[in-house]
Amino acid sequence: MKNKPRIRVDFNNMMAASIGAHGITEEEIAGHMAQAEAAAKALAEKRPQMKWRELPHNQAKIVEKIRKTAEYVRANYDAFVVLGIGGSALGPIAVHQALNHLHYNELPDSKRNGPRLYVEDNVDPERLAALLDVIDIKRTAFNVITKSGSTSETMAQLLAVFDLLKSACGGDYAARIIATTDEKKGNLIKIAQEYGLTTFFVPDGVGGRFSELCPVGLLAAAVCGIDIAELLAGAAFMDDLCGEKDIRKNAAYMAALLQYISMKRGKNISVMMPYADSLKYMADWYAQLWAESLGKRYGLSGGEVFTGQTPVKALGVTDQHSQVQLYVEGPFDKVVTFLGVDEYRSEYVIPGGFGHIPDVSFLSGHTLNELIKTEQAATEYALMKAGRPSFTVTLPSVTAFTVGELLYFFEVMTAFAGELLCINAFDQPGVEGGKQATYALLGKPGFDEKRAELKAAPEKDPKYIVG
Amino acid sequence: MKNKPRIRVDFNNMMAASIGAHGITEEEIAGHMAQAEAAAKALAEKRPQMKWRELPHNQAKIVEKIRKTAEYVRANYDAFVVLGIGGSALGPIAVHQALNHLHYNELPDSKRNGPRLYVEDNVDPERLAALLDVIDIKRTAFNVITKSGSTSETMAQLLAVFDLLKSACGGDYAARIIATTDEKKGNLIKIAQEYGLTTFFVPDGVGGRFSELCPVGLLAAAVCGIDIAELLAGAAFMDDLCGEKDIRKNAAYMAALLQYISMKRGKNISVMMPYADSLKYMADWYAQLWAESLGKRYGLSGGEVFTGQTPVKALGVTDQHSQVQLYVEGPFDKVVTFLGVDEYRSEYVIPGGFGHIPDVSFLSGHTLNELIKTEQAATEYALMKAGRPSFTVTLPSVTAFTVGELLYFFEVMTAFAGELLCINAFDQPGVEGGKQATYALLGKPGFDEKRAELKAAPEKDPKYIVG
Repeated sequence: MKNKPRIRVDFNNMMAASIGAHGITEEEIAGHMAQAEAAAKALAEKRPQMKWRELPHNQAKIVEKIRKTAEYVRANYDAFVVLGIGGSALGPIAVHQALNHLHYNELPDSKRNGPRLYVEDNVDPERLAALLDVIDIKRTAFNVITKSGSTSETMAQLLAVFDLLKSACGGDYAARIIATTDEKKGNLIKIAQEYGLTTFFVPDGVGGRFSELCPVGLLAAAVCGIDIAELLAGAAFMDDLCGEKDIRKNAAYMAALLQYISMKRGKNISVMMPYADSLKYMADWYAQLWAESLGKRYGLSGGEVFTGQTPVKALGVTDQHSQVQLYVEGPFDKVVTFLGVDEYRSEYVIPGGFGHIPDVSFLSGHTLNELIKTEQAATEYALMKAGRPSFTVTLPSVTAFTVGELLYFFEVMTAFAGELLCINAFDQPGVEGGKQATYALLGKPGFDEKRAELKAAPEKDPKYIVG
Repeated sequence: MKNKPRIRVDFNNMMAASIGAHGITEEEIAGHMAQAEAAAKALAEKRPQMKWRELPHNQAKIVEKIRKTAEYVRANYDAFVVLGIGGSALGPIAVHQALNHLHYNELPDSKRNGPRLYVEDNVDPERLAALLDVIDIKRTAFNVITKSGSTSETMAQLLAVFDLLKSACGGDYAARIIATTDEKKGNLIKIAQEYGLTTFFVPDGVGGRFSELCPVGLLAAAVCGIDIAELLAGAAFMDDLCGEKDIRKNAAYMAALLQYISMKRGKNISVMMPYADSLKYMADWYAQLWAESLGKRYGLSGGEVFTGQTPVKALGVTDQHSQVQLYVEGPFDKVVTFLGVDEYRSEYVIPGGFGHIPDVSFLSGHTLNELIKTEQAATEYALMKAGRPSFTVTLPSVTAFTVGELLYFFEVMTAFAGELLCINAFDQPGVEGGKQATYALLGKPGFDEKRAELKAAPEKDPKYIVG
């Protein structure tokens, strides 16, 4: 286990010893240890229900099928379009950004490691029109992903794609659509069976935001040339590490515990700030994971808790010039999670020049690698000096293995935070209201009551409309 | 004035009459009116110092020069690369996304309205390598933007670009670099004069985050075919509207006032959620504007205030499946600003299909336009029912004119919020610490003291490092 590349988590700047009054003391940690141990025990007991925990271990056959399908797509299509939203989109986007070329779709075919990839996670009509301008529908395969089969956005896209493919390709159009959905329930599995679509399953007990390591994420990754076995191996390695009984040596548990204590102390904002363009969309993926899992009205005992910490996405060094002013000087209301990298996959030495302007030429001879890492260290230091809590997760380098580790790390951290907060981290009852209102307004059968409620809503007061 | 397309702001869901206890009452507004009127008076008096306020009115000659330069770039280059960070990047990105094709860089030359555009606002070595894989440096023009001329990231990029161009293009390489900087001060103007670069100026009194409507933003926009006169005309129209004396009819002032009251009542998070892919990066631009302007340690009277509201970027409908669970059920700690659009620039009717599955086929015959707008209305309704404050800014359609309006609206709103908070909305002293630490660590002359301070910082405690 020692020889595997292992992510490293540094909690020093969470502690009062580093940052003063807004930090956490040893006594506070000790005072929460019994609660943390109980949470660890509860989580271990719930493991059989948390099917996402087994994804790194039980998919050998599925990986084979995914690889074969991916090979077929790679050999036959120029573009691969994911139709999905939320957990069906954020994981695929994050992993693709982490492991493929930063201008992947713009590369010529000869330099690109697979078909162009588009993840269509919105229903803006301008976006569909834009997509159709850049793909040749006859040379495109689609992966429609919805576990429930009732996601309006995704099903609307599927209707569009069926229609477009039918017109363009005629008889064999259904061969260009791959469905990823529940094995038994919902509309998409019915459609998939009726039209003979290639199908992958979202296992029972794997919710959208915990689904990146099942076929939801693995297929798009494999199509774009990512070693999905390595992704799963990294996650399996992290699962081992998360078995550590000593909570102080269990990075995912410690991260959750320190966030939990910070939340109790009024830090209602969780900033994730990767110092690597490749990890930029990890912050988006994490934003869903953390927000939907912990943002809950009711606790497990039934009382109202209105809990949750709001995720904020930032990018180092870019957002030093946008957000750090606020982080350093604003309210003491946030915890910053830095994501760092030991070894970037490129190196660039800043060339000489402007020797007569020392305020510029001091940069010459340093690498961009030094510059970005120095700026990360400087921002960590500035926040520490300003008394602001942060912790840093460092990847030895960004590989399929370490990305798998990172995903699994945050998933376990989130589940553990849910235990500490005594909430159900795996449901999302708060999105029902909006969904039902949409159904009612669009005339879906069975929503008459909601339609009546919406009709009865008071008119807007024109006094409060300007313009 | 009536016939110009005018953005509309609906504050109903900020009010207690709509959302209950977390809303604002008429009495509260009345109680703050004297303060608001004093702030309006103060802002009017400060107008001569706020040079960004005149940008819509005083740039006719500059627009001509920008257009000529843009024509030259469009005729001679395949790619246009902006080297800039923070305010030099976020505005150009937001306006480009709003007004150009959503897959602009992927379009063939014949369909694209100008050279490909890259805004390089980070120093990740992997990103530079990726850029060099997709541009032909001999067919690329660069616009280096830094007002101070001392932005390390941008100057490191400039050193790289000088070196790359010199090798690739030989003698005339400097003709491919356009500098945008202060007219008199700093290193970049020195370099520009020495090498005879085409140069544009950031006017005195126009800070980075208020600079989109000066050459900082206008050049890239013009190069990519955007009508910059229309952008400025829209801003000028909003300037007129912001002259409205009755605060209740002044949308920018009302937005600031209601946000201010909300902040005082513990809403420390400002979510911006556009329901349009084209407006996605308006939320990034706003995030800098709001965060850097209002995130301040000291008030104008010198005492510590630690003020500021943390911006959060979301996208509708996408983030209904990621963030709305938290917004509906989590803490009562945020105000959501929806950005909506009356008329999208495309329309798409969802085709028929799956007639035997009414839970899917109810979508058929509706347009995607209806779907996205209905989902916006449903989310507004769900938040209202959950007692969460929000307001909605609606553009009649997304055009250069309305985008200019929108930018200016948020700028005035931010300046007015700064007045209400009694802070200086136009400085950013909190970023100095991190900058100085970077300089010290990289050996910039004159930072020996900071270097000594950093050396004297206590070592990390290995107890708090896991992995």
